[in-house]
Amino acid sequence: MKAATFAELGRIELQDHPKPSIIKPTDAVVRILKTTICGTDLHILGGDVPETPPGSILGHEGIGIVEEVGSAVNNFKVGDKVIVSCITSCNVCHYCKRSLPSHCETGGWILGHLIPGTQAEYVHIPHADGSLYHAPKTVEDDALVMLSDIFPTSFEIGVQSSDVKPGDTVCIIGAGPIGLAALLTAQFYSPAKIIMIDLSQSRLEAALAFGATHTICSSDIDEIKAQIDAITDGYGVDIAMECVGYPATFDVAQKIISIGGHIANLGVHGKPVDFDLQDLWIKNITLSTGLVNANTTEMLLNVIKSGKIDATQLVTHHFKLSEIEKAYDVFKNAEANKSLKVIIENDISPA
Amino acid sequence: MKAATFAELGRIELQDHPKPSIIKPTDAVVRILKTTICGTDLHILGGDVPETPPGSILGHEGIGIVEEVGSAVNNFKVGDKVIVSCITSCNVCHYCKRSLPSHCETGGWILGHLIPGTQAEYVHIPHADGSLYHAPKTVEDDALVMLSDIFPTSFEIGVQSSDVKPGDTVCIIGAGPIGLAALLTAQFYSPAKIIMIDLSQSRLEAALAFGATHTICSSDIDEIKAQIDAITDGYGVDIAMECVGYPATFDVAQKIISIGGHIANLGVHGKPVDFDLQDLWIKNITLSTGLVNANTTEMLLNVIKSGKIDATQLVTHHFKLSEIEKAYDVFKNAEANKSLKVIIENDISPA
Amino acid sequence: MKAATFAELGRIELQDHPKPSIIKPTDAVVRILKTTICGTDLHILGGDVPETPPGSILGHEGIGIVEEVGSAVNNFKVGDKVIVSCITSCNVCHYCKRSLPSHCETGGWILGHLIPGTQAEYVHIPHADGSLYHAPKTVEDDALVMLSDIFPTSFEIGVQSSDVKPGDTVCIIGAGPIGLAALLTAQFYSPAKIIMIDLSQSRLEAALAFGATHTICSSDIDEIKAQIDAITDGYGVDIAMECVGYPATFDVAQKIISIGGHIANLGVHGKPVDFDLQDLWIKNITLSTGLVNANTTEMLLNVIKSGKIDATQLVTHHFKLSEIEKAYDVFKNAEANKSLKVIIENDISPA
Amino acid sequence: MKAATFAELGRIELQDHPKPSIIKPTDAVVRILKTTICGTDLHILGGDVPETPPGSILGHEGIGIVEEVGSAVNNFKVGDKVIVSCITSCNVCHYCKRSLPSHCETGGWILGHLIPGTQAEYVHIPHADGSLYHAPKTVEDDALVMLSDIFPTSFEIGVQSSDVKPGDTVCIIGAGPIGLAALLTAQFYSPAKIIMIDLSQSRLEAALAFGATHTICSSDIDEIKAQIDAITDGYGVDIAMECVGYPATFDVAQKIISIGGHIANLGVHGKPVDFDLQDLWIKNITLSTGLVNANTTEMLLNVIKSGKIDATQLVTHHFKLSEIEKAYDVFKNAEANKSLKVIIENDISPA
Repeated sequence: MKAATFAELGRIELQDHPKPSIIKPTDAVVRILKTTICGTDLHILGGDVPETPPGSILGHEGIGIVEEVGSAVNNFKVGDKVIVSCITSCNVCHYCKRSLPSHCETGGWILGHLIPGTQAEYVHIPHADGSLYHAPKTVEDDALVMLSDIFPTSFEIGVQSSDVKPGDTVCIIGAGPIGLAALLTAQFYSPAKIIMIDLSQSRLEAALAFGATHTICSSDIDEIKAQIDAITDGYGVDIAMECVGYPATFDVAQKIISIGGHIANLGVHGKPVDFDLQDLWIKNITLSTGLVNANTTEMLLNVIKSGKIDATQLVTHHFKLSEIEKAYDVFKNAEANKSLKVIIENDISPA
Repeated sequence: MKAATFAELGRIELQDHPKPSIIKPTDAVVRILKTTICGTDLHILGGDVPETPPGSILGHEGIGIVEEVGSAVNNFKVGDKVIVSCITSCNVCHYCKRSLPSHCETGGWILGHLIPGTQAEYVHIPHADGSLYHAPKTVEDDALVMLSDIFPTSFEIGVQSSDVKPGDTVCIIGAGPIGLAALLTAQFYSPAKIIMIDLSQSRLEAALAFGATHTICSSDIDEIKAQIDAITDGYGVDIAMECVGYPATFDVAQKIISIGGHIANLGVHGKPVDFDLQDLWIKNITLSTGLVNANTTEMLLNVIKSGKIDATQLVTHHFKLSEIEKAYDVFKNAEANKSLKVIIENDISPA
Repeated sequence: MKAATFAELGRIELQDHPKPSIIKPTDAVVRILKTTICGTDLHILGGDVPETPPGSILGHEGIGIVEEVGSAVNNFKVGDKVIVSCITSCNVCHYCKRSLPSHCETGGWILGHLIPGTQAEYVHIPHADGSLYHAPKTVEDDALVMLSDIFPTSFEIGVQSSDVKPGDTVCIIGAGPIGLAALLTAQFYSPAKIIMIDLSQSRLEAALAFGATHTICSSDIDEIKAQIDAITDGYGVDIAMECVGYPATFDVAQKIISIGGHIANLGVHGKPVDFDLQDLWIKNITLSTGLVNANTTEMLLNVIKSGKIDATQLVTHHFKLSEIEKAYDVFKNAEANKSLKVIIENDISPA
Repeated sequence: MKAATFAELGRIELQDHPKPSIIKPTDAVVRILKTTICGTDLHILGGDVPETPPGSILGHEGIGIVEEVGSAVNNFKVGDKVIVSCITSCNVCHYCKRSLPSHCETGGWILGHLIPGTQAEYVHIPHADGSLYHAPKTVEDDALVMLSDIFPTSFEIGVQSSDVKPGDTVCIIGAGPIGLAALLTAQFYSPAKIIMIDLSQSRLEAALAFGATHTICSSDIDEIKAQIDAITDGYGVDIAMECVGYPATFDVAQKIISIGGHIANLGVHGKPVDFDLQDLWIKNITLSTGLVNANTTEMLLNVIKSGKIDATQLVTHHFKLSEIEKAYDVFKNAEANKSLKVIIENDISPA
């Protein structure tokens, strides 16, 4: 089969691989219908993820049709249309039992990372019952792809961790795909104000279209603080979501948070940050971090089925699997292409 | 009246002050029976708290008898025996309405800080209904004094914030009075293991007597991590309570915390800490900080009345108000004197 | 002054009463701008509330201008525009300290019940700081009146108690004002399905306009159950809100609730209900009851200020205080008049 | 193999059955070491559980050694010593995904109910990874048997559902095994007062030995209410746990509950109860019911391993599997024999 392969530093290539098959009785094989690219895939191509060497098939998102199932799979049968979660969950290990399948001892984030991924004709899914979800017929494919990773991640790590409440003032730092998904899912709880901070005017315009009530286009901490004070009568924001992953963006979060507020870290950080405990020790704040557990996938499906939210707003471009290299180019040059999520359709495998 | 006064840098002195009286209808005046000294008082003497200048009466803990009440005080009358909370609460401002009386706009921590304190014959209490608690007759005076600050602080900021659960593994970094109070109050929730870290063997012995299951006498992070790994099968601790206030002790907390764990910061920090978000962004941790709200005072009173806990374990020394200078000396040289909390009895004012 | 007075069984009358004045330093007197009528007022007129005898001034909702304040009132001054909460809260009694101001020992629901009410030119407000809220200029008066009782009641006792979550299926039994307010405030949390049950087609049409996704016009339990099963794939509803107050409507709630579901009782009941513990003991349900605490008033104000919800949808009729008797007639004959909430404007007192 | 078999109404008999074997790859077979009898087993013998006909092997509690495992079992291997949970959990069905394995669509309470039980030499365990727990070597066998059902049930349905907090006043109605287990596990959260109500003086004496602070030996509701009022200053209890299952005992719970209190129903009810909503609608109470999910088994194991609680206090008698009929006799005549839990050791199967 064909699969998007990490060929060498900085380069993806559609290469031939053996078609996967069932190994354990809890496995499934899924024929991919649609997949997408995540910022993490770019990190892998950049060499930042040493456990994913050249030769690996990338991708941890997608929808497809079950092609084969092991004898111990309960919930799925051949022909079922499914969402592939970015999180593989055995349900029974130390972490799964503590509701942390993100850290499953034989799963977690392994697709396109430690095992072959979804940017391929077919994908092998361990622990199928804990890693696949039935795709409802009434929801568009593009929306379903958003349920593999970006919606659960923004919702669980951004919105649920910070306990967004009706009437709250929320600030999201970074208007990339994950920040915009946080903006969409935060609205499930009716905050009164959602402030979006970014340096790209086009992304901030998208944010306003997606429901932001205020935008700040600056990286100057004094300027940002002054605007936040004006919006919040000087109290600061109830919730700050860091969606970038740099010391400077974390610093924004800790400078604008109110007494009693919550900082949710969604960014992937590469180095330590200066944490202002000399100011914050007294401010009764909470802070949270985390990898998605994907245990809200069905809840999110229910919301999306109800039509409360249009998940396809995040999709800006469409490609075929046979043109995956071009898809990566467009996704990588996001500012120039005004790209958010790009959908890649499997045009190769016969139904 | 006589009152312990911040005379000059590093020196406390019993000086004469006018006896306080009612100013607003919500005020009370309390004749102090017993008070105590807090680490914060030493910081003030050291000049670290610029808003408390020389000339100030110190102290924010104590019990006494209501001497006078304003016309709008509902809950207290002359002659009532009361606990004075370290937190003054108006109950109706922005923060009080958000259950954050620690940051009350006309209260919070003001006693012995912004207004005259409790290390005196008499103290003026604004917002008396929100700042005093009835002292039950069946509890010893020394135990009641522990309810002004150290018990609510350790319980709210350490134990409640970190949601200690039956069976948990808790690590407390720093076996001073606040760490030991956290050790006592953490046991309200039946954790399975409580590990105490300190450099003083005598304090660690106290910790074992107070219920710690393990102690670590080291400041070497590798040594500490190795011992924690041995105790926790390599998973790390469910909860780490930072009770010191230095970057190095915060670092211990962040290095030993488990995936999904909670860091509760109780220490008063003077400078930023290096926060290892490059490791922790993925670990689904939570972190909390804060000043005590003292809104668990009645809950703690109920536990103490029931005899489940002996709060007087924290009291190591007794002095008279007339010898307050000596009390400060003993409290300051804690290691040499094996002192934890020192009780100071008002031997001056007639009943 | 003129005030709507419970003249005799079944009859309201605008009678003369002395204008109220400050008695305690924590009191305020408010000149009413607008008020409204609650179902409870009809119960009083009907003689069902023996502690409110003929001669009483009715009403526990409204907005107005502060006319006079006592010396211990912190948050309000003469001339402030305020919302009068149906709950009077001292903030410091046994129940207020347990976040149950609904049962405040010197407050709770007393307006138009134990003390003169708001359907008058002026009203005396004890514990003003705990019982009034500043009225923002950007919100219409009619919307603000909904914050005195009906919005906090439906939100706290219906929506918060049952922990409505994104994607949930909610069933509201009774499409009167309180059920419709629950329908509006439930949407703050993005449930996927909201089913409304009533016998009035016109109220169910209102429900659809207010956001219900399904309606059931029946009182036949088998018919209702069949329809609920069809909507929920046989699982039953996640949340059932009883908004009527009869054994038969409670029975609907307990028959349609899912395993693990929650029954929120908002109805005022006059007699015991048959509770099917023989079926429900095993079903892991929770149930809640309660009188409003009104401690979400500011949260609701924030949501309403943000424009997320149009609270005036509940207002169907407008009257003057001088025609209050007519207003009662229209409100009483709700089905004939398609009336929900009626607004009564004070046309008597000079500004 | 030999197994305790429901022979005919009211009679248990040790009969021959085929030894179980692996059917599905997720199964295990366990050789029983010790088992026990539950009140539910008596209900089955009495004919109250029609889905368990004569001929069934009873028992849903016990510990044993894994004899055989299917190919898809991850967590257990032959020779492992295990606790058999009363709840069989597939981890992936509609209810398991909602943290309700009590209602697992292919599991739940099925042992000794819908499939052969544990009062036998060997037992077949479906979904082994979700239904067995590793038995630590440091805990006595008798204590481990208490983790199959009675400890998780009392803790989850009694203590966790009612959110017992330090300082609370708890009343437990019924001092049988489940009520006494609730008494033991409630103490994990340090309530100040635990009141036990029963008609048996010997059980109330046991309750005092297990940590009750007060006992009431009465079934007269006025007498009970008077005693509760005396203990609670007239406020009623924060938490009432119904551990019997009759309308009269439920009535006690609803009559003594405080404003804002919680009623936890642990009793198995055979008919509806009169629920006093005419009094309770206004009292801001919550109520919960449920079958155990057994998802706290590891948490309880941690507490028991730490030595905080002696689970063997509940064990009053020991028998051999070969004398199971006698064991039932003693358990059935609890009052005469002062029996609580009886342990039955498998003396038949070779190790």
